[in-house]
Amino acid sequence: MWRVSFLRYPRPVMRILVLGGDGYLGWPTAMRFSARGHEVSIVDNFSRRRWHTQHSTDSLTPIRSLADRIEAWKEVSGKEIHAYVGSIEDFPFLDRVIAETLPEAIIHYGEQPSAPYSMKSREAAVETQYTNVIGTLNLLFAIRDRVPDCHLVKLGTMGEYGTPDIDIEEGFIEIHHKGRKDTLPFPKVPGSLYHLSKVHDSHNIHFACRIWGLRSTDLNQGVVYGIETEESAQDERLLTRFDYDEYFGTVLNRFCVQAVIGHPLTVYGEGGQTRGFLNIRDTLQCVELAVNNPAELGEYRVFNQFTEQFSVAELAEVVRKAAAETGREVEVRNYPNPRIEAEQHYYNAAHSKLLDLGLQPHYLSEELVRSVLGIIDRYRDRVIERAILPRTRWKPGELVAEVEKAETA
Amino acid sequence: MWRVSFLRYPRPVMRILVLGGDGYLGWPTAMRFSARGHEVSIVDNFSRRRWHTQHSTDSLTPIRSLADRIEAWKEVSGKEIHAYVGSIEDFPFLDRVIAETLPEAIIHYGEQPSAPYSMKSREAAVETQYTNVIGTLNLLFAIRDRVPDCHLVKLGTMGEYGTPDIDIEEGFIEIHHKGRKDTLPFPKVPGSLYHLSKVHDSHNIHFACRIWGLRSTDLNQGVVYGIETEESAQDERLLTRFDYDEYFGTVLNRFCVQAVIGHPLTVYGEGGQTRGFLNIRDTLQCVELAVNNPAELGEYRVFNQFTEQFSVAELAEVVRKAAAETGREVEVRNYPNPRIEAEQHYYNAAHSKLLDLGLQPHYLSEELVRSVLGIIDRYRDRVIERAILPRTRWKPGELVAEVEKAETA
Repeated sequence: MWRVSFLRYPRPVMRILVLGGDGYLGWPTAMRFSARGHEVSIVDNFSRRRWHTQHSTDSLTPIRSLADRIEAWKEVSGKEIHAYVGSIEDFPFLDRVIAETLPEAIIHYGEQPSAPYSMKSREAAVETQYTNVIGTLNLLFAIRDRVPDCHLVKLGTMGEYGTPDIDIEEGFIEIHHKGRKDTLPFPKVPGSLYHLSKVHDSHNIHFACRIWGLRSTDLNQGVVYGIETEESAQDERLLTRFDYDEYFGTVLNRFCVQAVIGHPLTVYGEGGQTRGFLNIRDTLQCVELAVNNPAELGEYRVFNQFTEQFSVAELAEVVRKAAAETGREVEVRNYPNPRIEAEQHYYNAAHSKLLDLGLQPHYLSEELVRSVLGIIDRYRDRVIERAILPRTRWKPGELVAEVEKAETA
Repeated sequence: MWRVSFLRYPRPVMRILVLGGDGYLGWPTAMRFSARGHEVSIVDNFSRRRWHTQHSTDSLTPIRSLADRIEAWKEVSGKEIHAYVGSIEDFPFLDRVIAETLPEAIIHYGEQPSAPYSMKSREAAVETQYTNVIGTLNLLFAIRDRVPDCHLVKLGTMGEYGTPDIDIEEGFIEIHHKGRKDTLPFPKVPGSLYHLSKVHDSHNIHFACRIWGLRSTDLNQGVVYGIETEESAQDERLLTRFDYDEYFGTVLNRFCVQAVIGHPLTVYGEGGQTRGFLNIRDTLQCVELAVNNPAELGEYRVFNQFTEQFSVAELAEVVRKAAAETGREVEVRNYPNPRIEAEQHYYNAAHSKLLDLGLQPHYLSEELVRSVLGIIDRYRDRVIERAILPRTRWKPGELVAEVEKAETA
């Protein structure tokens, strides 16, 4: 039986810790829970800002420093958000934060989130798996020893599953085999060393729930698009970051930037790659539903967090049309695929658990895309064109020349 | 179709690198391939010796330094083994070794191999996952960029699977689901943070084969027992290490030491825990079969490497009987289980692939146990009794008092 959604029946004030609270999703999440009256703290080590500096790229939106954001939020809402600057890989730091904040829920976005970044070099691969796996392992120990009742809401990714030739279930699957059956973790065939790090995390968290009795919700999220949320729309200083570069830009956001500056939409390969997608507003709704309807002690549950499936070619067409309606003619172009992935495949992923908890999806529409195009247009002078084309190849030594040829065609 | 076993049709001389070549299995493996005429190099960072020093424990057998072993081997066999001292987590070191040795096969035992060790503290858990996952990740990059045709023979463990309520297959399972089917990695529910590190490795190696076209055989090994191999029996200086402490001793070896010194056999819980087992001589045979019948480029294959299944209670009974026949009366005693695991469960694991390649098992017998007891007896003065009882609990804060009570009962 699903519990009644608590969105409409708010729970008392909770102590909530957002790891990666300076990020694309982390900052809007922190504001959302603060707006609801919870005591919100943030941990961030600014690695996303650092990675951008290293690549000479930047957020499209001109984001403020964390301290400025927090001040602006206080001015707008009258509410305080507390910030701890440091890395979860640094256990003494993390342990002190947990001991000081004694969180009842931890929302964990504090990982290296890019597949191409994880594939660009050995160093980046090791950094990704180290940051994500060891950081989360530290977190599990800190929760076990400091706040064993705390509900860990961990952001995973739909990319953990890969593209199997059977329906994807939510975390677990009942397998019938040689006259017996068991319900086991859904087998994973992830497509990058980043996605692998998330699979490793899932296994470690599952273990901590089974053996130590912790509680966790693993949100296997689809590809997020969109910029504004209820809170960030109130003041430009509250805007979240918006990435469109090859490393940190997700596909629909990238297409929107390309449409605004008149760059061909960069469809990799045939464009038949199908994935789950959701609006940033729905990310906040899902995380709120998870926090307000916590897992039981000892329970590890997985929600597939997306609202619709699209192929990359379908997305490109939606953007092309929405752009055309606003007077922007934009070409859809197929580029040699820098990734190694199936470009035509079966894809049907369950995603009913969050709907059962009360999720009200904001579906993708040309109207939504037009609104995103409008916001991007405000910042079009900030677009760094150099950052758009993919340079990272899943198999090195291939493709650089091909990509450059496609570009100059 | 299985290829013909090459054991009887030896291949030409190969360049073989053994990671962890100073260890319980690594050193006998290095001698075996050297005896066959291959060019063998060893990598080791002596972490096992260091961990023993830290715990004030030691191998039962008085093992020599690596340099002494290599000299003795040269004296006995006339053959050279080359040693590189360093850690695979140190990429520049590993990369130099790969570039200098250009191995055609790498046999990878170079990991932290103990479940209890991985559970004793956060530091040990992080060390385990860091050493194993990042070390293997470094190795995959070095192979990709230096010796992409090299065959990686990786030691995994049967413990990766856990104890599902369906038959365990060799790495992959065909799943029928909602009218469709696919062959996917067998779902894993491992029982310790060590076992998890091996699951992470398996996923990373599978990825490297799928995406980069590497080739690998993942040997999901059961619990190994025994001391002597063909090569080590030739000279006492060639003996491999033999661990019986709570961290590095495996269950049958531990029972044999307990029987010799008259300590009750330490059955954890009910003793219904069933696992796959194999003789150390069969480990060498299996690794040789894997090396001589390599995976294809791009292939990731999994062999379940054990010859028989036993419950812990059954093993204790075999040891008790063999000891009784040699005039040693020993009690089998049930201790509170320091682990969190099912003590009665279904267990039926496939293990036909190595048999198909020609494996000739040495099955467990009371005679074999008597011979092990005899060797142990030679070194009984070296037994450190303090090291026998388990102190590491899967869930801390429980059980210390109970274990001590059982001990003094």
